[in-house]
Amino acid sequence: MKFARIGTPGHERPVVQDGAAWRDLSPLTADVDGAFLASDGAARTREALAAGTLAPVEAAGVRFGAPVARPSAILCVGMNYAAHAAESGSAPPEAPVVFLKTPHTIAGPDDTVTIPRGSRKTDWEVELAVVIGRRALYLDSPEQARAAIAGYTVANDLSERAWQLEESGGQWSKGKCAPGFTPLGPWLVTPDEVDGADPAGLRLRSWVNGEPRQDSTTADLIFGVDVLVHTLSQYLALEPGDVLLTGTPEGVALSGRFPYLRPGDVVETEIDGLGRQRQEYVAWAPEPAGPAAESPA
Amino acid sequence: MKFARIGTPGHERPVVQDGAAWRDLSPLTADVDGAFLASDGAARTREALAAGTLAPVEAAGVRFGAPVARPSAILCVGMNYAAHAAESGSAPPEAPVVFLKTPHTIAGPDDTVTIPRGSRKTDWEVELAVVIGRRALYLDSPEQARAAIAGYTVANDLSERAWQLEESGGQWSKGKCAPGFTPLGPWLVTPDEVDGADPAGLRLRSWVNGEPRQDSTTADLIFGVDVLVHTLSQYLALEPGDVLLTGTPEGVALSGRFPYLRPGDVVETEIDGLGRQRQEYVAWAPEPAGPAAESPA
Repeated sequence: MKFARIGTPGHERPVVQDGAAWRDLSPLTADVDGAFLASDGAARTREALAAGTLAPVEAAGVRFGAPVARPSAILCVGMNYAAHAAESGSAPPEAPVVFLKTPHTIAGPDDTVTIPRGSRKTDWEVELAVVIGRRALYLDSPEQARAAIAGYTVANDLSERAWQLEESGGQWSKGKCAPGFTPLGPWLVTPDEVDGADPAGLRLRSWVNGEPRQDSTTADLIFGVDVLVHTLSQYLALEPGDVLLTGTPEGVALSGRFPYLRPGDVVETEIDGLGRQRQEYVAWAPEPAGPAAESPA
Repeated sequence: MKFARIGTPGHERPVVQDGAAWRDLSPLTADVDGAFLASDGAARTREALAAGTLAPVEAAGVRFGAPVARPSAILCVGMNYAAHAAESGSAPPEAPVVFLKTPHTIAGPDDTVTIPRGSRKTDWEVELAVVIGRRALYLDSPEQARAAIAGYTVANDLSERAWQLEESGGQWSKGKCAPGFTPLGPWLVTPDEVDGADPAGLRLRSWVNGEPRQDSTTADLIFGVDVLVHTLSQYLALEPGDVLLTGTPEGVALSGRFPYLRPGDVVETEIDGLGRQRQEYVAWAPEPAGPAAESPA
């Protein structure tokens, strides 16, 4: 099953895919969020689809937002592909390396991205994103992780490398939290649809202006999805609706093999079975002058 | 003016101090949160107090929750007192070092703290916490920061040092996000009450079992409050209700001068004019066996 949120930013409506059509989920929930996912939302949606109670919605030409409403946390795992660790100048980690992004970084999969003011090194990272469906704390085994996972989607974990690595004192979040720096979507795909292809064997790719950049598979994850959820649950509580970014493979600008992003560039990211993103990048510009400009904040 | 939230966890009601009494803020807002603070909540409260429209509430013997509802982000600044950087084995940073805690770490100022399962190095950190009242992005100067600040409160930025420093690959959040690891409060104090004493000259202290541990002043902050808000706004958007922890002074267990926290310990933290916290620390214990234990999450 594929969940999505369509409409203008801040006014998305929840929908579910049914064959070639999308159907309105509003009778079941106001949004695709942690509360919906934690209250057996997928099962209830299945029943409603079977009962034929959900009206079709026209999705052609409509914006897709991030497929889950703003989470309480975006948990990120760094250096989780050996070849990417090498291109970043690091040895593969012995344990998952965890950092956070602020929730306000989340954007729709095809939203225009503003390169932050003063940025010189904005970089792409295609990643398999895991959406949590049940609170997970002190899980006993990686096997238990599956019950905590609501589904999977595509993320572009955008980074400003100078801010992340050169001006940060070593803590990466400074270069990870610019507004719009986490395009997410287009769909939240439930595990039953992904497990057939095995979530540990999904091809993930990125392109800049149509040229290939990253091309790898989640089979190369150093720490797989179940191990990550189990391990993180020893340190913190993963909450329904939280988003876990599992790391990116080689092929980013940080490697020195490609230029950083510039206004006018187009980035595409794709994971097999989870869909494709396409973002245009524009330069930052000040807000238009006017009465509102008098307010400092 | 002092805002607070009183009642059982998850069911706090908003109140405001009026002389020796507390008054119910419910006629103005359902909670002390970002939306309330960003919509001139302080000014509207002042008007309501002057008009005498807020009923008194009995606060004696009632639990105080964190004085602001769960924020979208907890932004933390590390190594922001020279003497603490030295006791941690680091040189003072040249720019603010930023990391994040998950919002689910927030607890009431006097709530019992569970030492996380497997923890060997749970450590205290008294900190001046800044609560954001208006969105701040790309501020032009530190002076503009004041308009974005709703008020100040006390935080204990609890840390698991082995998780933060030994098992982390260098990214600190892994040891900062255990449930309940950010006792916050008791009050949100508006800037007009703090500026009289100067927010850059507040004494902050901590004790363990009544013995002094930290005793410093925010005059020793390497990067002051206004500089922090201005600097962070160049990298990310601070949002109404967000909490900024400004760093801790020397005198923590990481120094090697004091033992880490053990079950039965009592930590107190205090900042002049902002109030005092008192937490008892207990050992982690599994949930009682029963039907609920069958669910892995």
